[in-house]
Formats: sequence, C-alpha cells, structure tokens
Amino acid sequence: MNIQPSPAPAPFVAIVGATGAVGLELIKCLESRNFPLGALRLLASARSAGRDLPFRGADIPVQELTEDSFVDVDIAFFSAGASISRKFAPIAAAAGAQVIDNSSAFRMVDDIPLVVPEANANALRDAQIIANPNCIAAILTVALAPLHQRWSITRLSMSTYQAASGGGIEMMNELRDGTRAYLDNQPFEPQVLPHPYAFNIFSHNSDIDPETGYNGEELKVIAETRKILNQPQLPISVTCIRVPILRAHGIALQIRFEDHVCVDSIRQAYKGAPGVRVVDNMLNNHFPMPSEASGDPDVLIGRIRNDLGDPSNRTTTMFIVGDQLLKGAAQNAVQIAEALLEQA
Amino acid sequence: MNIQPSPAPAPFVAIVGATGAVGLELIKCLESRNFPLGALRLLASARSAGRDLPFRGADIPVQELTEDSFVDVDIAFFSAGASISRKFAPIAAAAGAQVIDNSSAFRMVDDIPLVVPEANANALRDAQIIANPNCIAAILTVALAPLHQRWSITRLSMSTYQAASGGGIEMMNELRDGTRAYLDNQPFEPQVLPHPYAFNIFSHNSDIDPETGYNGEELKVIAETRKILNQPQLPISVTCIRVPILRAHGIALQIRFEDHVCVDSIRQAYKGAPGVRVVDNMLNNHFPMPSEASGDPDVLIGRIRNDLGDPSNRTTTMFIVGDQLLKGAAQNAVQIAEALLEQA
Repeated sequence: MNIQPSPAPAPFVAIVGATGAVGLELIKCLESRNFPLGALRLLASARSAGRDLPFRGADIPVQELTEDSFVDVDIAFFSAGASISRKFAPIAAAAGAQVIDNSSAFRMVDDIPLVVPEANANALRDAQIIANPNCIAAILTVALAPLHQRWSITRLSMSTYQAASGGGIEMMNELRDGTRAYLDNQPFEPQVLPHPYAFNIFSHNSDIDPETGYNGEELKVIAETRKILNQPQLPISVTCIRVPILRAHGIALQIRFEDHVCVDSIRQAYKGAPGVRVVDNMLNNHFPMPSEASGDPDVLIGRIRNDLGDPSNRTTTMFIVGDQLLKGAAQNAVQIAEALLEQA
Repeated sequence: MNIQPSPAPAPFVAIVGATGAVGLELIKCLESRNFPLGALRLLASARSAGRDLPFRGADIPVQELTEDSFVDVDIAFFSAGASISRKFAPIAAAAGAQVIDNSSAFRMVDDIPLVVPEANANALRDAQIIANPNCIAAILTVALAPLHQRWSITRLSMSTYQAASGGGIEMMNELRDGTRAYLDNQPFEPQVLPHPYAFNIFSHNSDIDPETGYNGEELKVIAETRKILNQPQLPISVTCIRVPILRAHGIALQIRFEDHVCVDSIRQAYKGAPGVRVVDNMLNNHFPMPSEASGDPDVLIGRIRNDLGDPSNRTTTMFIVGDQLLKGAAQNAVQIAEALLEQA
C-alpha cells in the first residue's frame, strides 16, 4: 500500500514594498500564477501603509514595515530598494523566512544565489536569501539559456532600449505627464529624472564609474549576467539607454559563439524552451515590440540573423523584448518562489 | 597691380520636394547658412504645388515639377523619393544643373560620388549628380572621420535609435497623434506605419532581405558607410530600431581599431574637428540626447570609453546623436553645394 506524503502547508508570504510598481505586479503574479498561498502580508513604508490592495477578491490592508513584520512568514519578497533590503532582509531571514530580494543589495554576494529559473535553477540550493537579478540581466539570460546549454558563448555585445518602469511608478508618471505637456506646448519640469523624457532618449541615469566610464546599470548587467551564466570572465559590452516607453525593455544583442552556429539551429534551440517566444516574421516585418511584450510573461525573440560584421562567422544577432515588471522583476521573483516550493 | 578675379555669379537653385520634411529644412539651411543664391525655385508634386513658402522675408510660390523645371538651374536639390530622382535627376543634369540627390536612387552607382564633406569631400570631383547619404550613414561618418583619418578602423558595430522624421512629416504627425490618443485612452489606427508608435519601439520598417535577414535600412548603412570611408570590405554589424522621438537619431557605436587607441587620444582627435561636438560630462550624467541635438548642426558625441567586451582592448564604445533632418539630410546636402561652389 502506497502512503502519499501529506502536502506541505501553503506558505505564508510577505511582500515588502507592496505599493510600488514591482510590488503591485508581485501581487498580480501570485494571483495569475495561482501561487499556493497560506496567507499574504503586504508591507510598505509608514507613508504608504494604511491603504488596502485587492487580492483574489479581498481587500488586504498594507501594514507598516517593522522589525516584527516577519513573524510566521515563510517567503518574503523584497522590492523596496537596496537600503531597506540590507536592513530588513537579515531580520526576515533570522525570523525563519526565505527572502527573495529584488534589489541589488545581495546580488553579487558570493554565497547568495542570483537566479533566473530558466537559466540556473540549480543555483538555488537551500539559501535563506536569494537575489532576483537586474531586469536586463533577467530578460537577457532567459533568451540566452537555451543557447548557453548547447553551445559555448564567448562574447556578448548589446545596446538596451529601457522603459520608464525601471524607475518605478514615479518615472512612468513623469513620462506620461511630460509627454502630455510637450504635446500641449506646456512647460514641464522633470522631478524624477535629470533630463526631459518626452520624445527623448538618454544614457541610463545611473552614476558613471570614473575608472571604466561605464554606468552603474551597465556594470550590473555585466556582473550579474556572468554570475547567472556561471562564466565569470565572459567578455560583455553593453550600452544602456533609456527610451520613452512604459514597461518593456528591448535589447539589440550580438552573441559570439566558439564556433559557427547557423540561424536554423538557433531557432530549433528555442522550440519548446521555457519563458521565450520567437516572433520573427520577416515577410510582414513583425518582430518583438514593447506594445506586444507588455503584460506578456515570455521574452519575445526576433531578428535572428548571422552577424554580417563578424568575418569569422561566429556571431548571431537578434532583438529581444521583455516586460520589465514581469520577467524583469516580479514574475522572476515568483518563479524563484515556485522553484523553492518544488525543492521543499 | 593685382587684378581680382570677378566672383562667380550666385547660383540659381531649385529644390524638388520643397514641401516635405527635408525640403522645408533645405530652405531653412540655405537661409541660416547664408548660402549665396541667385534665385530659388521651389518644386513639388501637383498636389503640393500652388502654396507659398517663406524665404528671406519673401513668399516663394511652389511650382509643379515638370520636365521643363530645370531651365537655367545651376544646382538642384532632390528630396522627393527615389522614383522621382530616377526620372527627373537625369533631366536636370542634361539641362546643365548639378544635382544633389537626397534619395537612395544613385548612392551606390559606381561613378556617382556619395559625399559627407567632413569625411570625403575629395570624392566630389566634377560630378553632375552627387548623392547625399542615408541619415545614419551621414551622422555616423561625421563622427568617424577624425578617427578614420588617424587610425585604421577594422570593424564597426552599432544599434540605432531612429526618429520619426526619417519617415517624413506624415510619420512625425502619426507619432504625435498616436501618442495623444494613447494618453487620452482613445483608439488610434496607424496609417503610415504597420505598428503603433506611441510609447513603442520596433525594428525599422523597411523590407527584410531574405538572404541575410538584414532590413533595407541596415543594408544601406553598411554599403554607404563603406563607400564614404572608401573601405569596401569593412565588417559592419548594425541593427536599426525606430524609437518614439521626433527628429534626431541616436547610435550606440563600437569602433574596433587595428591597434589599441586610448580614450584620451579619441578626445584629442575630436578637438577642432568639423561637424562634431563632444558632450561627455560623466559627473553630471550629461551625454548626447535628441532633446539637445534637434536643430543642432553638429553631431553630439559622448559615453566615449574603452569597450569592456573586447579582450584584445582594441575597441572604443560611444553614443552619438545627430539631427536627422539636418546632418542626416538637408544640411549635408547644402554642405555638398557649398563644397561645389568652393571647387568652381
């Protein structure tokens, strides 16, 4: 007679930063993915606490984040910036919660796994704190995973087309409000960004490293991509540019392999691969676009072609677009939690 | 006693396509650059003929383009599409005019010079038809010229951030109108583009070459850049993306040299170079932006840095932005005309 193990009780989940752009998407992802949930505690700063947020037909009050917020919590999502994570993630972990942190606080700490489940679920192990990567690194490595599993990648080069959502609700609002003012010929003073955003593009607004000339976002993309792919020396070139779109990031990407890989083999590698969808209709000029990737759990991949600029014929070029708030943040965090439950 | 040669009479100039986005900028450029002008004839299709356009305080009537339009014309600017150029440029040339053609019709014809004065004024010779390059090729080669003159460039790789103006006034209007509709939650059916343009980016809307997977714009950039630099085999990788901005193009650019070139030498090469301006304030995160490049005759150059993705340390990365209607079209055409007058 077979005895079925009794199922583990559904976990008690907390979300720190529940009222932010990523926090709101975390709530939606838990709902849309039918995440098994024993209880849900929504946490935010004193300023945002007190309001209710809808979840599965109920209204859940947002509580103020304190040191006592993590009693009984099994899984705590953090999405309230690196300084909040640095202070409260160890407290949550000490209270017994597994922390999935969306900030940059722990990503490059040696013992802490940095995980994109499609690419390196094996890195999860039994960690108390798991880091969720930078949005570009997450979107990129989902697209790279099926190729990385088959062929040796020797170089990456990319230019990004990054949406406002990377700067939170405030930046999305600044883009909308500034654009309306521009169209109405009204003056508009940017509050969130140092530059006008309406009908404008600019180098990513993170600090420049004086030694390399790369900005903080670019250095994150390089370091995190190397860690996720477990290729600590992989040469990566990246230029991060903000463009006036709302919530999906684009990446023009060149992947150099050790040997030539033909376009058909690349397409074949993507067949059935998780988290990606090839949108590459050359006849109708239909390729990945933020207008279609926004709200889509998959990373869209297109313009797959042999790079004409590599005489050694070892480089593939493509253009990919992924939802910054989903695969670039909230959805990947929930996927990490799902993987933790599977391992439990 | 010295006898001064009597100055050549100021030329009779015609503009074909005077009412288009580039045509209107041509008129402004002739005005702002004090181009010596004997007379100005504005030409357009029957549909656009009849209206007046202002020039140096006068109203000039737009006449319908016919086979007799070029009598007495010394210099004819063409900016009305390749098929108009193919039909009427030889007629203008036969009537004795020197044609400066902004379309793609003659750019890759062997005997016809393709000219960016800062880069290859020497190619002008005594040609009857001179081709004005694709906007990206023009903006790019101005930025490359001071480097190309000093060092051997062995590879280029770029991703573009292209503005609506490349598709004319109609596309600029579609961007404005579509964006307003989006902000007002109103339905909007794109007429010019196959995709929604408001808060969206997409692969350049030119046909895809089935053999290479590159689109028409990308193949133009490759072929024309090689011709202007007189490096017919230069390996060039390019991805052309349209972004929701109005009239300046951005290019994320990697330049590989035969040997290492340090960033300071690059900056030095740009000192006093014509047509470029370095905007590279790392401390204040102030780099080239369309909001500042629009209406500026110079190509703005910034984010100059050693490429971290090239282990051989021979690649420089930068981000450049140039006005698509000025250096990318009208201004370069007028500069060609100025060079012709100097040679006369």
